[in-house]
Amino acid sequence: MRDVAVIGIGLTNFGEMWDTSFRELCVEAGVKAIEDAGLDGEQIDEMFVGNMSGGRFVLQEHIGALIADYAGLATNHIPSTRTEAACASGGLAFRQAVTCVASGMQDVVIAAGVEKMTDVSGGETTDALAGAADREWEGIYGVTFPSLYAMMARDYIHKYGLTREQLAQVAVKNHFNGARNPIAQFRKEITLDVVKNSTLVADPLRLMDCSPVSDGASAVIVCPLERAHEFTDTPVKVLASTQATDTISLHDRRDISTIDATIAAGNRAFKMAGLERKDIDLVEVHDCFTIAEICAIEDLGFCKKGEAGKLTEEGYTALDGKLPVNTSGGLKACGHPVGATGIKQVCEIVQQLRGDAGKRQVNGAEIGMTQNVGGTGATVVTHIFGRT
Amino acid sequence: MRDVAVIGIGLTNFGEMWDTSFRELCVEAGVKAIEDAGLDGEQIDEMFVGNMSGGRFVLQEHIGALIADYAGLATNHIPSTRTEAACASGGLAFRQAVTCVASGMQDVVIAAGVEKMTDVSGGETTDALAGAADREWEGIYGVTFPSLYAMMARDYIHKYGLTREQLAQVAVKNHFNGARNPIAQFRKEITLDVVKNSTLVADPLRLMDCSPVSDGASAVIVCPLERAHEFTDTPVKVLASTQATDTISLHDRRDISTIDATIAAGNRAFKMAGLERKDIDLVEVHDCFTIAEICAIEDLGFCKKGEAGKLTEEGYTALDGKLPVNTSGGLKACGHPVGATGIKQVCEIVQQLRGDAGKRQVNGAEIGMTQNVGGTGATVVTHIFGRT
Repeated sequence: MRDVAVIGIGLTNFGEMWDTSFRELCVEAGVKAIEDAGLDGEQIDEMFVGNMSGGRFVLQEHIGALIADYAGLATNHIPSTRTEAACASGGLAFRQAVTCVASGMQDVVIAAGVEKMTDVSGGETTDALAGAADREWEGIYGVTFPSLYAMMARDYIHKYGLTREQLAQVAVKNHFNGARNPIAQFRKEITLDVVKNSTLVADPLRLMDCSPVSDGASAVIVCPLERAHEFTDTPVKVLASTQATDTISLHDRRDISTIDATIAAGNRAFKMAGLERKDIDLVEVHDCFTIAEICAIEDLGFCKKGEAGKLTEEGYTALDGKLPVNTSGGLKACGHPVGATGIKQVCEIVQQLRGDAGKRQVNGAEIGMTQNVGGTGATVVTHIFGRT
Repeated sequence: MRDVAVIGIGLTNFGEMWDTSFRELCVEAGVKAIEDAGLDGEQIDEMFVGNMSGGRFVLQEHIGALIADYAGLATNHIPSTRTEAACASGGLAFRQAVTCVASGMQDVVIAAGVEKMTDVSGGETTDALAGAADREWEGIYGVTFPSLYAMMARDYIHKYGLTREQLAQVAVKNHFNGARNPIAQFRKEITLDVVKNSTLVADPLRLMDCSPVSDGASAVIVCPLERAHEFTDTPVKVLASTQATDTISLHDRRDISTIDATIAAGNRAFKMAGLERKDIDLVEVHDCFTIAEICAIEDLGFCKKGEAGKLTEEGYTALDGKLPVNTSGGLKACGHPVGATGIKQVCEIVQQLRGDAGKRQVNGAEIGMTQNVGGTGATVVTHIFGRT
């Protein structure tokens, strides 16, 4: 396999984008990535687009071709493929792009992610998202994602004694970071009291424990590492690209507050990169709910089970901590247009390794990691990146 | 890149499968492919699942994980990815599996395709399928797939003078073949009069010019060619795997009765395989409507534009003709569960090259080709296969 590097990134603002359509969002991110890489669109050989539910949110399937067309890339008839694994759809698109270049099949490949969630009513959004769970054994009984993650949180609290303050600190930290990210949906800091006093959604999760419904898009361009300096002075090398699957239903897991697919994908990633946990300078994890960040830190092996709450409270995962987590603001504050999230995480790590992260820059960041989750953990995609 | 071979195939019956669920269909095809390859499920490294619109048809997304789980493959936490490009979703899943093995990322990879279309009303099915076209510039104005292909047919007839009998002969031929395929939805022969007297759907297309709404699934297992003989005495080599994109809207094309993405993907496939048109012994093309088979034969370069109707009438594309087309019965008679079709085409070619096609066997078949179309031709996937 050939070594692969990221040579360009592009992001739209995340939020309620009433005046921008699904396709316009994705094309905006793609064009920014093309400009960032200093490419002509004609140099792109293949495209992957991560999207969870265009069929439900905007009544549109066939999304790879749609985006290639509106980006002006259909004139060269490049291949364009949509990938889907619920909220991990973007991570999958990136992984397919890496595989495509690694194989020698193509040289310059763009991976984009997009979701437009605010064009339908809240009930429709909630039901579409429930399509990420098992429709026949979960969704049909009325279970929604806040309630699934609430069950994970209750199980976790029962086993490990996480406090309300520790859980709330995840949101406080991620809002602190999001306030420093120009594309974030929520660019304001919050306090522990704001989280603790927010509306109860699914006990113990309150409104400020939950990531929002968002519109947005993200894009990344990869090429063989040996060609990267044709396009950029600051290529970022892909050190590992891994993915793992678990049961789609939460109730079928051996342990509902441990995400085994995160353990599997993470272990494979460290093996592939030949690195240890202590080598990672920062990590973007999938904090669709505050409890998910706690589990992710532990299941990736950065600490033992039951320790992440205390570490969060002590500032270990803060922007100036030993292991900054979700410097972008995470899904909680940056926003969570589900198909776009996995690639936004990659964009954040690339900005950090380039030293381009502005007010949220982690000093001396050399190696970063991403963890992107589908559903309650039935799909997990992890990537490790290094400065070159 | 490593050479890749097909070592196992599996198909469900195609039709209205009232007593089999979406996931059961896909698992049935997968298990048959695993048995055909003489594998243990534990030997499978990665999975791709082609599906167009689980979100609309069965309210289910996150389909890669769902199928891996119900196939018992989540216990090993293998990666599983859904691909989507409307009716070309299956072809894409197969192409990703080929790329994955070619890259050296994995060794034994399964590609499946599935659609369950009969669980919703006819109106919902038609609207979900319209998600393969441009929702904002086609679907919103009430255009459906029969009407889009009818416009292509009218343009073709205007330019080339195709007769009603020539068009009907596509359906007659494919029903002749389907009557010899045990999994086909319509296992009976029809006459020209049956086609000509069937209900008008969208002038000039009648009911018997249209492929049906179907349930069904298909699966194929690939591995490196050098390992293929560990599993089977009759591996089939993948000689080319290509894909091309065009504008999603029909009205944006330079010529609405020529599918440029077929020309592009086909040319790339012949170049990749180092073969000429005359080397192909049989081909499975995407006859979602009879006119689509006419265009496919021409756009793949097997004859000049305007000649395929006459060739069809003369028996050139019949089971005992010079170039048998759609020996499976095609989408028309075998059925068209959209996500499954691209991989069913691969299964048909593999059966033919193995000499396992029973009453529809093409004598001495050495090299076969598939062409799988998304929408009105915004995505085309082509593959060429050879006996080893």
